[in-house]
Amino acid sequence: MVTRIIFERFSKEFSSNIEVDVAIAGAGPSGLTAAKYLAKAEKKVVLFERKLSVGGGMWGGGMTFPVIVVQKESKYILDDAHVQLKNEGNGYYSADSIEVTSKLCSVAIDAGVRIFNTISVEDVLLDNMKVNGFVINWSAVMIAGLHVDPLSIRAKYCIDATGHAAEICHIVKRKVGSLNTPSGDLEKERSMCAEIGERTVVENTKEVFPGLFVAGMGANAVYGAPRMGPIFGGMLLSGEKAAKLILKKLK
Amino acid sequence: MVTRIIFERFSKEFSSNIEVDVAIAGAGPSGLTAAKYLAKAEKKVVLFERKLSVGGGMWGGGMTFPVIVVQKESKYILDDAHVQLKNEGNGYYSADSIEVTSKLCSVAIDAGVRIFNTISVEDVLLDNMKVNGFVINWSAVMIAGLHVDPLSIRAKYCIDATGHAAEICHIVKRKVGSLNTPSGDLEKERSMCAEIGERTVVENTKEVFPGLFVAGMGANAVYGAPRMGPIFGGMLLSGEKAAKLILKKLK
Amino acid sequence: MVTRIIFERFSKEFSSNIEVDVAIAGAGPSGLTAAKYLAKAEKKVVLFERKLSVGGGMWGGGMTFPVIVVQKESKYILDDAHVQLKNEGNGYYSADSIEVTSKLCSVAIDAGVRIFNTISVEDVLLDNMKVNGFVINWSAVMIAGLHVDPLSIRAKYCIDATGHAAEICHIVKRKVGSLNTPSGDLEKERSMCAEIGERTVVENTKEVFPGLFVAGMGANAVYGAPRMGPIFGGMLLSGEKAAKLILKKLK
Amino acid sequence: MVTRIIFERFSKEFSSNIEVDVAIAGAGPSGLTAAKYLAKAEKKVVLFERKLSVGGGMWGGGMTFPVIVVQKESKYILDDAHVQLKNEGNGYYSADSIEVTSKLCSVAIDAGVRIFNTISVEDVLLDNMKVNGFVINWSAVMIAGLHVDPLSIRAKYCIDATGHAAEICHIVKRKVGSLNTPSGDLEKERSMCAEIGERTVVENTKEVFPGLFVAGMGANAVYGAPRMGPIFGGMLLSGEKAAKLILKKLK
Amino acid sequence: MVTRIIFERFSKEFSSNIEVDVAIAGAGPSGLTAAKYLAKAEKKVVLFERKLSVGGGMWGGGMTFPVIVVQKESKYILDDAHVQLKNEGNGYYSADSIEVTSKLCSVAIDAGVRIFNTISVEDVLLDNMKVNGFVINWSAVMIAGLHVDPLSIRAKYCIDATGHAAEICHIVKRKVGSLNTPSGDLEKERSMCAEIGERTVVENTKEVFPGLFVAGMGANAVYGAPRMGPIFGGMLLSGEKAAKLILKKLK
Amino acid sequence: MVTRIIFERFSKEFSSNIEVDVAIAGAGPSGLTAAKYLAKAEKKVVLFERKLSVGGGMWGGGMTFPVIVVQKESKYILDDAHVQLKNEGNGYYSADSIEVTSKLCSVAIDAGVRIFNTISVEDVLLDNMKVNGFVINWSAVMIAGLHVDPLSIRAKYCIDATGHAAEICHIVKRKVGSLNTPSGDLEKERSMCAEIGERTVVENTKEVFPGLFVAGMGANAVYGAPRMGPIFGGMLLSGEKAAKLILKKLK
Amino acid sequence: MVTRIIFERFSKEFSSNIEVDVAIAGAGPSGLTAAKYLAKAEKKVVLFERKLSVGGGMWGGGMTFPVIVVQKESKYILDDAHVQLKNEGNGYYSADSIEVTSKLCSVAIDAGVRIFNTISVEDVLLDNMKVNGFVINWSAVMIAGLHVDPLSIRAKYCIDATGHAAEICHIVKRKVGSLNTPSGDLEKERSMCAEIGERTVVENTKEVFPGLFVAGMGANAVYGAPRMGPIFGGMLLSGEKAAKLILKKLK
Amino acid sequence: MVTRIIFERFSKEFSSNIEVDVAIAGAGPSGLTAAKYLAKAEKKVVLFERKLSVGGGMWGGGMTFPVIVVQKESKYILDDAHVQLKNEGNGYYSADSIEVTSKLCSVAIDAGVRIFNTISVEDVLLDNMKVNGFVINWSAVMIAGLHVDPLSIRAKYCIDATGHAAEICHIVKRKVGSLNTPSGDLEKERSMCAEIGERTVVENTKEVFPGLFVAGMGANAVYGAPRMGPIFGGMLLSGEKAAKLILKKLK
Repeated sequence: MVTRIIFERFSKEFSSNIEVDVAIAGAGPSGLTAAKYLAKAEKKVVLFERKLSVGGGMWGGGMTFPVIVVQKESKYILDDAHVQLKNEGNGYYSADSIEVTSKLCSVAIDAGVRIFNTISVEDVLLDNMKVNGFVINWSAVMIAGLHVDPLSIRAKYCIDATGHAAEICHIVKRKVGSLNTPSGDLEKERSMCAEIGERTVVENTKEVFPGLFVAGMGANAVYGAPRMGPIFGGMLLSGEKAAKLILKKLK
Repeated sequence: MVTRIIFERFSKEFSSNIEVDVAIAGAGPSGLTAAKYLAKAEKKVVLFERKLSVGGGMWGGGMTFPVIVVQKESKYILDDAHVQLKNEGNGYYSADSIEVTSKLCSVAIDAGVRIFNTISVEDVLLDNMKVNGFVINWSAVMIAGLHVDPLSIRAKYCIDATGHAAEICHIVKRKVGSLNTPSGDLEKERSMCAEIGERTVVENTKEVFPGLFVAGMGANAVYGAPRMGPIFGGMLLSGEKAAKLILKKLK
Repeated sequence: MVTRIIFERFSKEFSSNIEVDVAIAGAGPSGLTAAKYLAKAEKKVVLFERKLSVGGGMWGGGMTFPVIVVQKESKYILDDAHVQLKNEGNGYYSADSIEVTSKLCSVAIDAGVRIFNTISVEDVLLDNMKVNGFVINWSAVMIAGLHVDPLSIRAKYCIDATGHAAEICHIVKRKVGSLNTPSGDLEKERSMCAEIGERTVVENTKEVFPGLFVAGMGANAVYGAPRMGPIFGGMLLSGEKAAKLILKKLK
Repeated sequence: MVTRIIFERFSKEFSSNIEVDVAIAGAGPSGLTAAKYLAKAEKKVVLFERKLSVGGGMWGGGMTFPVIVVQKESKYILDDAHVQLKNEGNGYYSADSIEVTSKLCSVAIDAGVRIFNTISVEDVLLDNMKVNGFVINWSAVMIAGLHVDPLSIRAKYCIDATGHAAEICHIVKRKVGSLNTPSGDLEKERSMCAEIGERTVVENTKEVFPGLFVAGMGANAVYGAPRMGPIFGGMLLSGEKAAKLILKKLK
Repeated sequence: MVTRIIFERFSKEFSSNIEVDVAIAGAGPSGLTAAKYLAKAEKKVVLFERKLSVGGGMWGGGMTFPVIVVQKESKYILDDAHVQLKNEGNGYYSADSIEVTSKLCSVAIDAGVRIFNTISVEDVLLDNMKVNGFVINWSAVMIAGLHVDPLSIRAKYCIDATGHAAEICHIVKRKVGSLNTPSGDLEKERSMCAEIGERTVVENTKEVFPGLFVAGMGANAVYGAPRMGPIFGGMLLSGEKAAKLILKKLK
Repeated sequence: MVTRIIFERFSKEFSSNIEVDVAIAGAGPSGLTAAKYLAKAEKKVVLFERKLSVGGGMWGGGMTFPVIVVQKESKYILDDAHVQLKNEGNGYYSADSIEVTSKLCSVAIDAGVRIFNTISVEDVLLDNMKVNGFVINWSAVMIAGLHVDPLSIRAKYCIDATGHAAEICHIVKRKVGSLNTPSGDLEKERSMCAEIGERTVVENTKEVFPGLFVAGMGANAVYGAPRMGPIFGGMLLSGEKAAKLILKKLK
Repeated sequence: MVTRIIFERFSKEFSSNIEVDVAIAGAGPSGLTAAKYLAKAEKKVVLFERKLSVGGGMWGGGMTFPVIVVQKESKYILDDAHVQLKNEGNGYYSADSIEVTSKLCSVAIDAGVRIFNTISVEDVLLDNMKVNGFVINWSAVMIAGLHVDPLSIRAKYCIDATGHAAEICHIVKRKVGSLNTPSGDLEKERSMCAEIGERTVVENTKEVFPGLFVAGMGANAVYGAPRMGPIFGGMLLSGEKAAKLILKKLK
Repeated sequence: MVTRIIFERFSKEFSSNIEVDVAIAGAGPSGLTAAKYLAKAEKKVVLFERKLSVGGGMWGGGMTFPVIVVQKESKYILDDAHVQLKNEGNGYYSADSIEVTSKLCSVAIDAGVRIFNTISVEDVLLDNMKVNGFVINWSAVMIAGLHVDPLSIRAKYCIDATGHAAEICHIVKRKVGSLNTPSGDLEKERSMCAEIGERTVVENTKEVFPGLFVAGMGANAVYGAPRMGPIFGGMLLSGEKAAKLILKKLK
């Protein structure tokens, strides 16, 4: 019977992801990219996405014109995902934002990433002042305002790839203590400056608290760097960098 | 400058899709499948999705357990999309619902389908009692309740792949006249009966009004057939059948 | 004191418009045009607009692209309002939708029309089965859901220029009786057919009930004619026709 | 075909306004006036209005009594717009608020101003600590709560004419740094004092941050001056002053 | 202790009103007037008002201008309540709507009426096809959407004084059967015609179902008569007539 | 680890309830009572409750006064649940509504009933015109408006114990066909008549469609019988009767 | 015609209250009492109430049990209003809260107070650091969120009788500067202590800023005194004291 | 008559609980447990629950999987309530969350606890800087936003068992002054750490202000201790400890 097939496959997969190598919050460009490179390196990776669909802010391109732009430095990540790129000159390439989203997701899954959607990360699991996992709940329960307790999953390392909001970093700052930033606190994202933002998002991809890495737009937000223009290359590179940093730790 | 690249690529693509061979409303499993087979046959196909993300009800599997089931008859469509299937016995195969969604979308785009998201179809274009296109508007404008007139695009044939609601069929019934059903009217979907529903969804994939085809869950809804169980095979076959019926017409 | 200047000017103008020749509901393209031609012929005209701003659906052009199109038959109405038109060939002219809106309003006011905004028409005043005025209330009171009774103003003739919804016609049908339509009832607007819709909107501009005329999109809605495409010429001509029909009556 | 005419005219106009001399946020009395004087001086001016209709708070006069008052000092600006003024004595003139709104808009457009409505300014573009443009998005997308990235447009100078809220100034203070005010921060508007407020709104029309000017009610808000009474003259003069200050810079 | 004083006084009064002579739903002009005349005749009268404040639509006068008008025929009812009336000529008198409301309430209470506010009537109590009381609940419980059962109170006769909506009549029609109207059903109120409406509201004050009388605006609504203008005299007379009809029955 | 204990216990229990003897929708007084008697007879019973808490309308007693009343005929059911009853004379007993709710639930669980809360029944499973189970989904998913497909569970017999709304009966009528009522359709509940309602709720506890029984307030609603007063005895007896009718069938 | 009678009476009364001796915000127990004593002393008093109905929190008594309690010290104020009091012993008297509300309003109007309802005070008028009037707007406009400017009225003295919120005091603190309190700032009301609160509310009835007095619950809130129990005597005495303080100033 | 039975039983019980030994806010696991042990010791205990149903966050188990876990230290409390426990090894026991909730409530009521539901605690009663009772109101009145004053009840000791939010502690801190914590202020709950949280919740169960005890999740929140995992044992022990501490005081 179909109900049994669906529930038991889910049940087995959920059970087998209660303890993982890396847990990621947010299936946008940086989260999917980080997940792919970690899974390719044979790590057990689980990715929680609060919405039904993955992709975050990629679907709508700029102002709902479904096109995104990347610079030549990050072109290889989209080439690896078999995305058709149009050379727009000056080192810029454009792509269909819907294609980019679906293909980044496809390659992550092919690499072995396990994605659970409609699940929100509402807190972290803390031992000895190190983040050791996520406290999760159904997004629907939270939207519906039901009073229901969460569960927790355990991970050696966690990535906050929740975008501008840098939600996990905010939770840690509010409920645990100082972050690994100059002020110890979070900064607000700065006004848009594409040139600087594209560069700093990679630089700011770091371990902000023992056990917790920040990647993608959240990295600029946490470190008070400028917002990027409607370019996605930096976010892809940030995701890849987060993967590399964690792989070094896991060795 | 990035704004110019994005806007001008969108502008060129939107302009070149104001007149097409086939316009499809709804990027769920049947809409994406119909679009792919039509594009593979070199037809100009535009697909309008009201949400930011494609995939419709597929992302959540059954009850947010992200797994779907297909029967062996439709397995080849997922094989063509490189989806990993798990044989569950008795002719059933399960798949990760997130993988299915992103890969059905990827192969449709690779085949040449042009998808515009966040656009809703709010009426049809009618000449001589034949549906000749869609009247469209930004979904955001409709959600925000702004009073803004729509625009129209012209198509030789249209497909209503909007799911249960069969929205385009409802518009045509209300604003034009009788449908090609026994009663001339729409029926409500019947209670769930997986065995019958999976079969009838393909049978009911028809031209319901001159120029307008219905595919996917809407086909059962329009013809008063049972709702399917949490199986997606029938919808994929329905999409493929709609493509075939239109290809015959377009020759 | 400024409060006294404002209140006393309003007070005087409101008092002097409690009995008028023509009362119009809705300050969209047809309402403003009808009002202008009536005022030019020295009639006392009051126009009630439920929103703060006049213009109805004109501001947003098509799909928020702020451009509208008219055909050469109605070009003279925009020429009279000093609107800059761009010849697009085939008898079509385009204009900036924001310019059209503000200038149609300016010329109506210059002609002597008195516009009261944020006032909704919630019923008609009826004597001997003839509409003899409007029952009005503050829109804000209705939005806020306050339980407050309306007041009434008296007019020799009334125009329903409320657009698609044909709200005043609906009120009369529901609260008084049969309309001057083949069925006596209101029809729903039909699906879009620009060629037919542009023509019928002028034909359907009629006295739908003794004392009440319908103009603009409501005329097609009431008589079950097709919805127009994103062209505004028919609506302007409809407004002018309503003015002419009433002027004949008022002689 | 009408869709093509509308879309392609918009497309051309949007493309040609991605780089301008002056970008203005807010089409109320000060924004429209500033825009008109800049355009008259042959500058390329783009004005973004978040609502469908221009005019801001002018439509409703005072307490929805559609009358406004100006003092004799600013009378010439309304005379230039062909607004009928009634002399109320003591240097005060009253006007129909609906007429003022539509005529200020008409003359701005005639002067060459390009208005895009339903577009919100959500951030500024920053280079070398100078505001060089706006980061924009569809208002409908923001109202609907869709997760879609913005685009940016580039301008030599920008004006914050968003009224009381002084939204752009708030963004700059929050996301960039100190403003050109005694405290470096924004002040809240003070309680109403018509005599002082009318005077200070012109005095406070300044460059609050390199590249960014504030005009209209926002000027009093930013500098902590009193709120004006229901008089609009100061706002018109403020708009004109902003234009003059920028024209000096652009020489 | 104050809590005990308040609760025990309420408790005693509520208990002593579980069985009464007459129960009235709605404390607007007709409900308060009916109640006063019944109480003056020594009957036990309970009045349930769903809001916190009594008065219904009287507070706002016409369009929130706090003035009401009565004709000379009903002047004596306001004279009895010590309301100051201004003679406006032609048999019309105006009064301050806030004064009318508070004084009609004061005299009803002085006559012995017991008013319970924030209580809604959600059904009737029925025995042998006669209305014998009301089924009541806290309005707050209903607004808050809590799933809580009602209680019932028993009355020899009931009055529906709920205004336009004629809520109790609708309940009886829907949940019990035919009303004492020509069609057996409820009619919708007709468009405004002050001359006729003022007269019919008194004529239509009747026993619409065994045990249930209708008074005030509901009387015109139930019998399909015209809506009154912003005059309150008919409603006062209607309330008095309902009282007289019931007093005859109670003898 | 605690997450594993909780998830795996749920997983095992959910899996083992995908096929049951009896499925019940609604954990109010009749649903809990029916479930208890079925489980006591060794049947496998699953009860779905859409809210987090069981008890339906019992918690609030009458008008949030947390007291309920039963008549002596049903007293034994509360005695069996160890509820303290106060003899109020005339065959009436009162009880604390909070005690009744928690104890009816306790004894049902002790008897072996399996309750799943926050799950809604959104359709029935139909084979050969017999109801053979429920189509279920998370309530939170439905409240949050997420587009997610349901799953189905299989049962030999089903009970609609959803109260006034008789939701399952409505679904069957709308999506399958005629019910076993005189008209084949559902009736609306009649106005309150405690004497008749208490008796008819037991009489109307029947198999309304092959495989589907109705119990509790829904029974009166479906058969057009009067609403009960604030007495719960009839509902308890109705639940017990539904159990007995099904036990006869299951033999 | 009735519309003319209503509008012109309102118009005359509004015009004649643009300059008054005393303006009061809030028609609860303290506002009505202050107004009555001021009007009795032949002062011109205008009272603005944001709701349709006067009375504030009095209607609902305690927890919607419509009873209030006063102590013997303030009994004479209710005696003056002809309210029936029940002696509850220990110096306490209870009254029907609905009677108290309607009679306090009646006697204020009889004394010559002019009440305008559905008008909110959104700011103060300030000259030379003295409050000289209120800036007002329609409450409906504010609830509906319409962007409409306010008007102002001028008064020699103003009273903030808006209750707990002490809204006018908050505005003055935020938009003007220090209040006449020990800290210069507002305090939050303290937890309930009936004995102290009843006494301090009279003590704290003061001129908190030149031209502005605070009365009623706001007085305790502004001075950080305890919240009163469900007793209304202190508020009545506070209103009377505010009147006396102003009368001294006006001499 | 049933209404009389219900109202008079409520009335008597409410009256007899206006002065009690202990008043508790919140009927979750710690509130019910504290109440039971106090009532068993013959103390008069009243428990106010803002929702209709008791149980707080227990119903949904973890992530709506209706299972909870306790450790062996608190097992005896569930044994006393006759809950069936499953030994999961390592000192852990699992239970059905619906069973736990209904049985903890049943045993509290059997012990003599009086629960009033749909009542919110909105403030405390304060004398001589000691909490001496609660200020209460109907939850429905607060949800509906009605302006109605509360009543108060008097208790020798009070318990804040409102969960994470520690609402009563927040009120006392905001409206009275310093708490008995190291900083005198409230801390925010820390991120999840099951081992520590389970232990500290018992340690932190204290008298936080004269007359006010905190129990359950609020205890960790107030003292800045870690959030517990999905384990309920600590909360049960915390409830029991609060009871013991108060019993000592009451001797």
